[in-house]
Amino acid sequence: MRLAVLQCPSPDGDDEAAFATLAANLTAAAAAGAAMLVAPEIYLPGYNQPDIPARAQTRGGPWQQRLAVLCRTTGCGLTIGYAERDGDTVYNAAVTFDATGAELAHYRKVQLFGPREKSIYAAGDSVATFDLHGIRTGLLICYDVEFAHLLRALGTQGADLVLVPTANPEPNGHVSRLVVPAHAINHSLTIAYANYCGVEGDITYCGGSTIAAPDAAILGYAGPAPALLVVDLSRQPDPALLQTQSADYRPV
Amino acid sequence: MRLAVLQCPSPDGDDEAAFATLAANLTAAAAAGAAMLVAPEIYLPGYNQPDIPARAQTRGGPWQQRLAVLCRTTGCGLTIGYAERDGDTVYNAAVTFDATGAELAHYRKVQLFGPREKSIYAAGDSVATFDLHGIRTGLLICYDVEFAHLLRALGTQGADLVLVPTANPEPNGHVSRLVVPAHAINHSLTIAYANYCGVEGDITYCGGSTIAAPDAAILGYAGPAPALLVVDLSRQPDPALLQTQSADYRPV
Repeated sequence: MRLAVLQCPSPDGDDEAAFATLAANLTAAAAAGAAMLVAPEIYLPGYNQPDIPARAQTRGGPWQQRLAVLCRTTGCGLTIGYAERDGDTVYNAAVTFDATGAELAHYRKVQLFGPREKSIYAAGDSVATFDLHGIRTGLLICYDVEFAHLLRALGTQGADLVLVPTANPEPNGHVSRLVVPAHAINHSLTIAYANYCGVEGDITYCGGSTIAAPDAAILGYAGPAPALLVVDLSRQPDPALLQTQSADYRPV
Repeated sequence: MRLAVLQCPSPDGDDEAAFATLAANLTAAAAAGAAMLVAPEIYLPGYNQPDIPARAQTRGGPWQQRLAVLCRTTGCGLTIGYAERDGDTVYNAAVTFDATGAELAHYRKVQLFGPREKSIYAAGDSVATFDLHGIRTGLLICYDVEFAHLLRALGTQGADLVLVPTANPEPNGHVSRLVVPAHAINHSLTIAYANYCGVEGDITYCGGSTIAAPDAAILGYAGPAPALLVVDLSRQPDPALLQTQSADYRPV
């Protein structure tokens, strides 16, 4: 399977700009043979927008209906972060559609980051896995991927791949440079981490989107500028480097 | 301007497979907004083919006519290595087409690598630059990029970008990891280095295709597996990190 990671500036609240960027990159990813494109965190309406609660939409609402059509017309699956409204509650959520527009997965961020997120969003309380072209796959969002217990939880559910929309600002380039590859090898997972670049309000994002393999290979890496990465996941990782932390785990 | 780098296995002498791969990736690159795709060294007919002299084609011959059509129909420019016949002489050459299929540049590798290349090819004797959407650009091929005097020669011709088809085998991953970024910053150039991955005959390629910026930023990096990188070059490098080696150069 081929996987694409989109690194781009925030659409800054402009839905039409967001859908145009997604359409172009889903088309490109499909042409390059990718089955799935991973886009950043809260890409709808934009991570650092001031009016998230007013903009948040329900699971299955207009954003998702339009995203499903986009997947179907371009022939590429999509994993994307969005602000989700559920009654009076707002979640930092992500959704995965396959290339027919069918919803494969839905996830709510567990580890909210800092006072702003905690003031806007309620936290999720579970992780889950799903089948993606024969690969057991899970979703995490941004700060989640820095917590080993969440990767372990996905690993014990059989995950081999974790897709991570993120909104990682300067000066946190160490997350994609060090933490994501370290967690990939520690938990024997491929991790695809899709970040923003550029500026949104008072945040400067650090780019550094990456796809890290369970044998510490970096399959793709983006710098500080807009980028589309398409990588093939069919390569077999070096078996001598595959860890057994899940089996070896001893609680203290 | 957006630039795409294609990392893929050698077509292994199969022209139809080569053109199919190029068509898919030129289509993808164009959809992602790229003006130029860089493909590996001697992609036609494949770097490590046993019958290079018999397969080599003239500049402007059938390969190039077909490549020009492919650029025009996909709407993306292409820089690609090929085995060039010129009378009784064979060169390790590269050609650049724009998105209309017009030839923008033609280059013959100066620094041939090892006894096999030296037994097949004659060496080129010059470097040149051309305009690529307002960016002064030069071509080098593989081993060339490890020689500072060639980068300096392009720098003194005003180059800001160097496109490098390559066929870099294991265990030479240091070239893309260290040498290419070091030469990018030393010579204030962006360098796009497009390698093979996988196996061709007795060669295992090391991947590691990269786009390195003049301020030591890595705009894109590929691992050991097939990948397509598309990056935006419009970001301004950090001026405090721009070198002046060309102006400071003192012969000894």
